Amino acid sequence: MREVAVVGVGMTKFGKSEKTQVEMFSEAAMDAIIASSLEPKDIQALFLGNVLGDFEEGQMNMAPMCAADIGIPNVPATRFEGACASATVAMRNAYMWVASGFYDIVMAGGTEKAMVMGTPMATRTFAMGSDSRYESFAGITFPGAFGMAAHLYSKKYGIPLKKLKEQMAMVAVKNHKNGTLNPKAQFQKEITVEKVLSGIVIADPLQLLDCCPFSDGAAALIFASVERAKDLIKKPIYIAGTGQGSAGPLYSQKDFTRIVAREMSAKQAYKQAGIGPEDVDVCELHDCFTIAEILATEAMGFFEYGKGSKAAEDGETSLNGRIPINPSGGLKAKGHPIGATGAAQAYEIVKQLREECKERQVEGAKIGMIDTLGGDLATVCNMIFRR
Amino acid sequence: MREVAVVGVGMTKFGKSEKTQVEMFSEAAMDAIIASSLEPKDIQALFLGNVLGDFEEGQMNMAPMCAADIGIPNVPATRFEGACASATVAMRNAYMWVASGFYDIVMAGGTEKAMVMGTPMATRTFAMGSDSRYESFAGITFPGAFGMAAHLYSKKYGIPLKKLKEQMAMVAVKNHKNGTLNPKAQFQKEITVEKVLSGIVIADPLQLLDCCPFSDGAAALIFASVERAKDLIKKPIYIAGTGQGSAGPLYSQKDFTRIVAREMSAKQAYKQAGIGPEDVDVCELHDCFTIAEILATEAMGFFEYGKGSKAAEDGETSLNGRIPINPSGGLKAKGHPIGATGAAQAYEIVKQLREECKERQVEGAKIGMIDTLGGDLATVCNMIFRR
Repeated sequence: MREVAVVGVGMTKFGKSEKTQVEMFSEAAMDAIIASSLEPKDIQALFLGNVLGDFEEGQMNMAPMCAADIGIPNVPATRFEGACASATVAMRNAYMWVASGFYDIVMAGGTEKAMVMGTPMATRTFAMGSDSRYESFAGITFPGAFGMAAHLYSKKYGIPLKKLKEQMAMVAVKNHKNGTLNPKAQFQKEITVEKVLSGIVIADPLQLLDCCPFSDGAAALIFASVERAKDLIKKPIYIAGTGQGSAGPLYSQKDFTRIVAREMSAKQAYKQAGIGPEDVDVCELHDCFTIAEILATEAMGFFEYGKGSKAAEDGETSLNGRIPINPSGGLKAKGHPIGATGAAQAYEIVKQLREECKERQVEGAKIGMIDTLGGDLATVCNMIFRR
Repeated sequence: MREVAVVGVGMTKFGKSEKTQVEMFSEAAMDAIIASSLEPKDIQALFLGNVLGDFEEGQMNMAPMCAADIGIPNVPATRFEGACASATVAMRNAYMWVASGFYDIVMAGGTEKAMVMGTPMATRTFAMGSDSRYESFAGITFPGAFGMAAHLYSKKYGIPLKKLKEQMAMVAVKNHKNGTLNPKAQFQKEITVEKVLSGIVIADPLQLLDCCPFSDGAAALIFASVERAKDLIKKPIYIAGTGQGSAGPLYSQKDFTRIVAREMSAKQAYKQAGIGPEDVDVCELHDCFTIAEILATEAMGFFEYGKGSKAAEDGETSLNGRIPINPSGGLKAKGHPIGATGAAQAYEIVKQLREECKERQVEGAKIGMIDTLGGDLATVCNMIFRR
């Protein structure tokens, strides 16, 4: 397999959009094409993440619609659905088609118009990502699943719930702060621990500001063989490793404070990249809930199990901390357009490694990683990028 | 890239099933695993086609659920959706992950429980595969789209509609006859031209028996590197070529009697295989409607444009004809569990090339091809197999 690089990235501002999912994707895609010094006709295939297009707009088979809208109606165009991890799974496959030598230049990304349903309906609809026979059927939603995880974490590690809630609130405060430095973020205002702790309860112990929003948005990247990349742009960013892991329904998982799909996935990515978690300079990970960020930092190996909440409290994950997490604002503040989220994470990491992030730049970042979780811990996909 | 072989195949009987989609897939998958002399733990990744799992059973992110149910909960498991072409797109990606050298043994297939909605609701739901802004929104369904194609074909080639309807009926008669020779087919009885022509009108000129049914079913295949394949079984079947093409919304297509996505896709597959349509001994193609089979035989190059209906009339596509089409019974008689259809086509071709098809065996078949169409001509994926 040969080396693969990202040559250009694009994304819409996240938040409410009046555009269709296809139109949002085109906006992001054209930005990526221009940034890559390419024309649409140079793209040989499209790999697209999209989760609920059929429920949101009555649109299935979104990928050829997106390809047509950017002027390449006949290229192979494929939709991937792995719940929130959809775009990252799409990107991992795009990577493989270039690494294998089959294609030289492909586009990958995602699009989603999640706000059109409204949060209550989106929450119920999105619960279809969990097992339909025993879980969503019985009323479980994603806030419910992560609320249980927070209780388990508190109990398992002997951290009083009151304390854990404060630590979780600090995750939200950090990500909102980062969001104010990102013009494309949905939320642009700082919050306080007090504000988080006075929010309405969504699924105990999670309160409103422990939860990411549903968002509209799209993001796109262009992957190229290293030979082509060097001809096209000055600062290609290389893909050092990828991983993907799964887990069965929640009821079959032994301990969902330890996300086994993520352990498997991250291990593969580190192995392929020939590095360990200590080598990662900046990370965008799946903070769908504040507790989710804490759990992710542990399963990815940044902190020992049971130490993630303390690390968040101590500022180790802030912009100038030991391992800056979610400099973009994360799902929490940048927003979470489900099928586009992984591509937006990759957008941020590419920008960070090119040192184009201005006030939210992680100084001297050379290796960056993304982490995207789909379903109730059922799909995790990781990618490691390097300068 | 290295050579890839199919080592084992499995499928459920198509038709109404009381099982869930996950359970149906497990049945097919375990048959494929046993046929491959493998155990579940040998499988390194799963690639799954599924279209409407969320509408049918409230189940998104079906792939990890399927992996867990066959005892491999942690392998990367990815769902693909390209409308009816979903499983073929999944298989094409599975092929690439082995061809690249990244994985040695992967499973691909599809599952669908389309009958649970009933035909009227399934037809309306499935229309989401066409453009939501200008097509499904305006009331177009797939029978409507192919009804228009039949009218266009009649007009363009000067074939009186009455004559064309008889020729289309002969496609249905042939596929039903083949279905009686396939124990896994949904329909097991022969029909006559008179019976087709006396059916209720679905979308003029298409009558009931011009249309394939919605079905429940699943199919699975195991792909392996050639080195592993030779150790495992006596008769590996090799993948000689693949192709995938797209087209924009129907309103943007110049002539939908010529399916441009299919022309692109078939051309890629022939090129990779180093053959032409004249070298194909047996083909399973997308006969969602009788006119669709005729159009496919032309775009794939088996017959000249405008000659496909006459070829069907002359028996050139029958079991002992020049190019036997749909020996399994096709979507028309074997059934059409949307997300599984491509995998079932591949199941048949592998069985044909191994000469295991008994009464419906195409004698001496050495090269076989599959063709799967998704959406209103938006996605086509082809694969060529050889002994």
